Amino acid sequence: MKTELISIGDELLIGQVINTNASWMAQQLNRIGMDVIQITVTSDDNQSIVTTLSEAAQRADIILITGGLGPTNDDITKQTLCDYFNTRLIFNEEAYQNVQTIFKLRGFKVTEVNRKQAEVPENCTIIPNPNGTAPGMWFEKDDKIYVSMPGVPFEMKPMMSDFVIPKLALRFSSDAIIHKTILTQGMGESFLAEKIKHWEDALPPHIKLAYLPQPGIVRLRLSARGNDKQQLQKEMAQHVHQLKFLISDLIYGYDEDTLEEIVGKLLKEKGLTLATAESCTGGYIAHRITSIAGSSAYFKGAVVAYANEIKENILKVNHETLMKFGAVSEQTVSEMAENARQLLNSNYAIATSGIAGPDGGTTEKPVGTIWIAVATPAHTIVQQFHFGDERNRNIVRATATAFNMLRKELVG
Amino acid sequence: MKTELISIGDELLIGQVINTNASWMAQQLNRIGMDVIQITVTSDDNQSIVTTLSEAAQRADIILITGGLGPTNDDITKQTLCDYFNTRLIFNEEAYQNVQTIFKLRGFKVTEVNRKQAEVPENCTIIPNPNGTAPGMWFEKDDKIYVSMPGVPFEMKPMMSDFVIPKLALRFSSDAIIHKTILTQGMGESFLAEKIKHWEDALPPHIKLAYLPQPGIVRLRLSARGNDKQQLQKEMAQHVHQLKFLISDLIYGYDEDTLEEIVGKLLKEKGLTLATAESCTGGYIAHRITSIAGSSAYFKGAVVAYANEIKENILKVNHETLMKFGAVSEQTVSEMAENARQLLNSNYAIATSGIAGPDGGTTEKPVGTIWIAVATPAHTIVQQFHFGDERNRNIVRATATAFNMLRKELVG
Repeated sequence: MKTELISIGDELLIGQVINTNASWMAQQLNRIGMDVIQITVTSDDNQSIVTTLSEAAQRADIILITGGLGPTNDDITKQTLCDYFNTRLIFNEEAYQNVQTIFKLRGFKVTEVNRKQAEVPENCTIIPNPNGTAPGMWFEKDDKIYVSMPGVPFEMKPMMSDFVIPKLALRFSSDAIIHKTILTQGMGESFLAEKIKHWEDALPPHIKLAYLPQPGIVRLRLSARGNDKQQLQKEMAQHVHQLKFLISDLIYGYDEDTLEEIVGKLLKEKGLTLATAESCTGGYIAHRITSIAGSSAYFKGAVVAYANEIKENILKVNHETLMKFGAVSEQTVSEMAENARQLLNSNYAIATSGIAGPDGGTTEKPVGTIWIAVATPAHTIVQQFHFGDERNRNIVRATATAFNMLRKELVG
Repeated sequence: MKTELISIGDELLIGQVINTNASWMAQQLNRIGMDVIQITVTSDDNQSIVTTLSEAAQRADIILITGGLGPTNDDITKQTLCDYFNTRLIFNEEAYQNVQTIFKLRGFKVTEVNRKQAEVPENCTIIPNPNGTAPGMWFEKDDKIYVSMPGVPFEMKPMMSDFVIPKLALRFSSDAIIHKTILTQGMGESFLAEKIKHWEDALPPHIKLAYLPQPGIVRLRLSARGNDKQQLQKEMAQHVHQLKFLISDLIYGYDEDTLEEIVGKLLKEKGLTLATAESCTGGYIAHRITSIAGSSAYFKGAVVAYANEIKENILKVNHETLMKFGAVSEQTVSEMAENARQLLNSNYAIATSGIAGPDGGTTEKPVGTIWIAVATPAHTIVQQFHFGDERNRNIVRATATAFNMLRKELVG
C-alpha cells in the first residue's frame, strides 16, 4: 500500500529539530510491506496542512500525520483536521479519562487547557496514548486511512508499535515480506562488504540486502518478498546460515537485539555480575547497561575515573603504573579492570582508557587510541584500538567494542 | 522569499538515512530571512520528482534540491531536470576539469561513468563542488530559482555556504527574521503555558511563540519578522525581559545552550570541580558531562553505586542510614553527595537515588520517585521528585533536573 508521512511543525522547517520521527516510522512501515512514497514537512498553519493532506490523498492510500497535537496555541492540527473532514470537535470521555489518569500519576490537577486535549474530531476513532495526554486519531474516508499522532517520539512510537502497525498489517494482506537483520561488530562497512561480496552477489533477486551502519556496529538487513511465507523463511535461514559461516566471529545477535541486552541476558542466566571502570567512555557503558530494566540483578556499579587521582585513589591503580606507562596503556587499563572486579565485588569487569578527542592526542598516542580490558574470574584480556577523530563517535565505538569483548568471554 | 527543500532518495524513504541535510539547510536559509515553507522527501523516480517540482513551484520562489546526482544508475535527477525544463544534457568543460582534479588528488583514473558526471542540463549555471565530482546546478525559469546539489552532506554544505547562501542573500533583501529560544527546566509544557498566558497573549502578531518540549526541559522559541532588524531585536529583547520577570527561576539558558555545557562553563570559569554519585541515573549524568570536549578540566569522575553494597563499600554511606531510611531517601542521597565530594576530592557533587522503573515501585515510593542532592562547599541541597513511568525518560528528566540544581548553586 502506498503510504505518505506528513510531519507538522515550524520547528522542523527552521531546522531546530531533525525529523527522526519520519525515518523511524518509515522503517516500521517498510517491515510490513508498506511503501513510503513521500515524506512532507509542513507548517503549523491551517491552509498548508489542508493542501498537504489533499495532495497526499491524491497519491497515497494511507497518510500518517505527526505533530501539532499539544495543548498549547501553536498546535492547530485537530481543528484543521475538522476543516479537512468537514466535521467538528467533540468531547471524548475515554480520552479525558486518560488525561486524568496521567495527571493523577504525576500528582497534578487537570486544568482547562488539558481538558481541551480530550476533544477530538467527531469522525475519528481514538488511539490510546499511555504516555501523554493527546490521543491519537484514526480516520477513514473515501477508501483512504488517515492517522494523526503526537510529534513527541516517546508518545508516537508506542502508538505506532502497539496500534497502528498491527492494525495496518492485519488489514492489508499483501505479499509476505520477511526481514532478518544480522548484527555485526568489529569490522567497518566497506571491509565487510568486500568480505561477503560473493555471498551477496549470489542472493536471488527477491531477497535484498541493506547495510545499516552505526558507530561501532554494522547491521545487515535481509528482506525477502514473495507469496509463500514458509518458503521465504526457509530460504532466508539458508542464506543466514551461509553468512554465519563467513563471519561468525563478527555476529553478535539478530534483529532488535542490542549488545547491552545480550550481555545482560547472559549475565543473568549465568547468575554473574558486572562492574565497569571507565575513563574515556565517561560512564557511557554504565549508562547503556542501566538503561535496561532489571539490570540491577547483574550490574554492581561503576567507577568513572576521569582524573588520574581517581584511578589511583578509588580504583587503586599503582602510582608507578601510571607514571611509567601513562593512563592510556595496557598496564593501566588492566589494573583498572582487575581492581574494579575486586573493589566492586563482581565476577566480570570492563575497563576503558583512551583519547576520545578532539584534544589530548600525541604522535605516539593519537586521538582515537583506546585500550579496553575485560577482567574475568580466569584472566584479563586487553586490546588496543584506533578509532577516529570524533569524540562522541569514539565513545560509542569503544562501548560497542567493550560489550562485544565481554560477550565473547561470556559465551566462552 | 518562500523556499522549499526537496530531498531525493529512496534511502530516506525506507528510513535508512535521517534527513539531516534538510534541517541544516533550513537553518542556513532562515538566517538570511528565507522562509522554508515545505520540505519534501521523494523517490529516485522521474515522475515523482517532476510532480514534486511542479507542486513546489506553485508555492515557492526558490526550490533547493539535494540528492540523486551520483554516478550510479539509481541517481536520475539530472535527466529528470532536463525533462522538467524541457532541455538536454550537454558536456561541461569546467565540470569535467573538476572531475579530473578530484580523481588526480585521489590517485584514480577517470572512467567513462565519471565523464558523464560532467554532463549538465543546457540551461543551468554550474556551482563548483570542491569535494566531489558532481557539480551543483543553478536554474532560473519563470521568476523561480531552482538549485540542485549532491546529497552527500560533506559536498552539499560548502556549496550552500560558499555559493548558494551568499548569492540568495545578495539578490533578495527581504524581511529580517530573528529568533530567540528561551530554555526552561522545572515545569511541564501545559503549566508553563498557563503561567505565561498573559505574556503570550500580549505578543504582537509579528512575533510568534512555539513550545518545544523535551524530557525535563521546555524550549520557548520566539520568531520575529519585520523590515527593521534593529527594531526587531529591541522588541525581542523587551519581550524576553518581561518573560524573565515571570519565570526567571526556570530559565537556564538561551538558543543552542545545553545544560551540560552551561554547568561545564561555570565550573571552568570558577576553577571548580565536580563529581557524581549515581544510583538511578546509572552513569548518565557522568556521560552527559564527559560528552563535552575539555570536560576533564573540571570533572573528576563518578561512582555509579547501583548495588547497595557499592553505596556502602565505595561511597561509605552508613549501613544504618540504608537500613533505616532505604536507598531511595533524603538521608542516603545526601550522604552519597557529601561522601562523593570528599572521596573524589571535588568542590561540588551531584547524587541521585530513585526508582526509574518499570519495576521496584511500592505504594510509599512509586516508580518515578527520585531524590537528587547537590553537595557544595557550603551545604547540601536535597529535593524529591515524582516523575513518570518510563525508565529512560525518568533517567533523562532526573539528569536535566540535577544539572539545573547544580547550575543554580553555581550562579549563586
